[in-house]
Amino acid sequence: MSYTHEHTLRVRYAETDQMGVVYYGNYFIYFEIGRVEFCRAVGLHYEQMEKQTECFLTVAEAGCRYRRPLTYDTRFRVRTTLETFRKTFLSFRYEVLPSEGGTRLARGWTKHIVTGPDGLPRRIPEPYAGLLKGAV
Amino acid sequence: MSYTHEHTLRVRYAETDQMGVVYYGNYFIYFEIGRVEFCRAVGLHYEQMEKQTECFLTVAEAGCRYRRPLTYDTRFRVRTTLETFRKTFLSFRYEVLPSEGGTRLARGWTKHIVTGPDGLPRRIPEPYAGLLKGAV
Amino acid sequence: MSYTHEHTLRVRYAETDQMGVVYYGNYFIYFEIGRVEFCRAVGLHYEQMEKQTECFLTVAEAGCRYRRPLTYDTRFRVRTTLETFRKTFLSFRYEVLPSEGGTRLARGWTKHIVTGPDGLPRRIPEPYAGLLKGAV
Amino acid sequence: MSYTHEHTLRVRYAETDQMGVVYYGNYFIYFEIGRVEFCRAVGLHYEQMEKQTECFLTVAEAGCRYRRPLTYDTRFRVRTTLETFRKTFLSFRYEVLPSEGGTRLARGWTKHIVTGPDGLPRRIPEPYAGLLKGAV
Repeated sequence: MSYTHEHTLRVRYAETDQMGVVYYGNYFIYFEIGRVEFCRAVGLHYEQMEKQTECFLTVAEAGCRYRRPLTYDTRFRVRTTLETFRKTFLSFRYEVLPSEGGTRLARGWTKHIVTGPDGLPRRIPEPYAGLLKGAV
Repeated sequence: MSYTHEHTLRVRYAETDQMGVVYYGNYFIYFEIGRVEFCRAVGLHYEQMEKQTECFLTVAEAGCRYRRPLTYDTRFRVRTTLETFRKTFLSFRYEVLPSEGGTRLARGWTKHIVTGPDGLPRRIPEPYAGLLKGAV
Repeated sequence: MSYTHEHTLRVRYAETDQMGVVYYGNYFIYFEIGRVEFCRAVGLHYEQMEKQTECFLTVAEAGCRYRRPLTYDTRFRVRTTLETFRKTFLSFRYEVLPSEGGTRLARGWTKHIVTGPDGLPRRIPEPYAGLLKGAV
Repeated sequence: MSYTHEHTLRVRYAETDQMGVVYYGNYFIYFEIGRVEFCRAVGLHYEQMEKQTECFLTVAEAGCRYRRPLTYDTRFRVRTTLETFRKTFLSFRYEVLPSEGGTRLARGWTKHIVTGPDGLPRRIPEPYAGLLKGAV
């Protein structure tokens, strides 16, 4: 069974727009945080991996389906799952949920190519690969 | 044949991240600008419509496929097309292209529900509906 | 003695720029969070006040002195103090500090006019005024 | 007489907040654009300078006084002046003005230390120094 990580956030004023709700592009910041915290929870420090191995999870695709708006100062959860892990490819799934209760507010996905600083595909080196493999 | 609008932008420093390229979430800002300029070009001032009719193009889905990175200070075009226009539903397509040449850097889409300030679906009133209908 | 509130944050990838550090404009988002959490800590829920009294803390001036850069994924504290509280005017001071240790990374300030939705100055109503007055 | 550069921008939806006006932190993005366009206008391509000389204009201080709000879709000008230019120090002044007319909406300033990638102060090399010196 795949590992699921939940991270709680609070909507910042800067993240709202004049409709009074979170701007649609900002959900991708929430997904990034969900992803990084997922990795941290399984023992992979993304910042460290980037620095030590010069290995990047370059985003190849990202998407979001919005169901109910998020308003200023609301606490909410980002639930992150690693859906696929192959040699040079990863995909994550995200759900945006209220801080309590299960009504989904939004759900999203990101697909990543593992690259070096030159942008060319490469494999994630150990021990990082093993940590992610165990979390799918 | 559907109308296509092109809008030229330049990458801001604030839009880059420490990978030295535009942060993936910021493409959705570019799509929003493409969408608004598309509407303006067909005679629909989005700001005016929001104010006068209290009609919003609420984003229901958004996505992007990233192909080549965009770097700081680069001039690029967002090419916007209105793909679908129904009573309470619209969808747009976007292509991110270099300022010159046809190599696509990214492409995206947004789907919108037309809503009132209460969040409930409603039709876009005239003359706005007619302007969009003519541009599909 | 004035009340001081500390709130711990972590640098997001989206907040960095291609210099590999937090973009200078994003410190003002941190100050906003420090301010809101300061208010919450003294019992004033800013969102609630905005909604119930239609009273806004409109920013009249903001500034920041940057001393040492903040890098991705770093945990840090924003230390907030309410420096001045007058009938229609408030000012806050902020210090950005490492999560541990006292070396200041940046310090900032904001000055606010209390306004109604029309932008005209007005007094903060009770009980909000009392909560802030007690925290200067 | 010092050189003054004006750059016209339009408020993006993403830049507004739930008060219906531009978020206060986003003015610093406008100042950055004003600064970069000022430099471009005097022949200094900032991106090129960063890459070729590894010389950065690190922000040491930034501030803004807000007078009238900027609303969505409004066209406005950023008027930029290089106030001071010394060996390792520069300061800029900014005015935010309507696209037409002279009523100032905001004004700001930034102070910069010229640094290498190590963060240590250094001089701007020629021909960049000469271009800026001529524009004070």
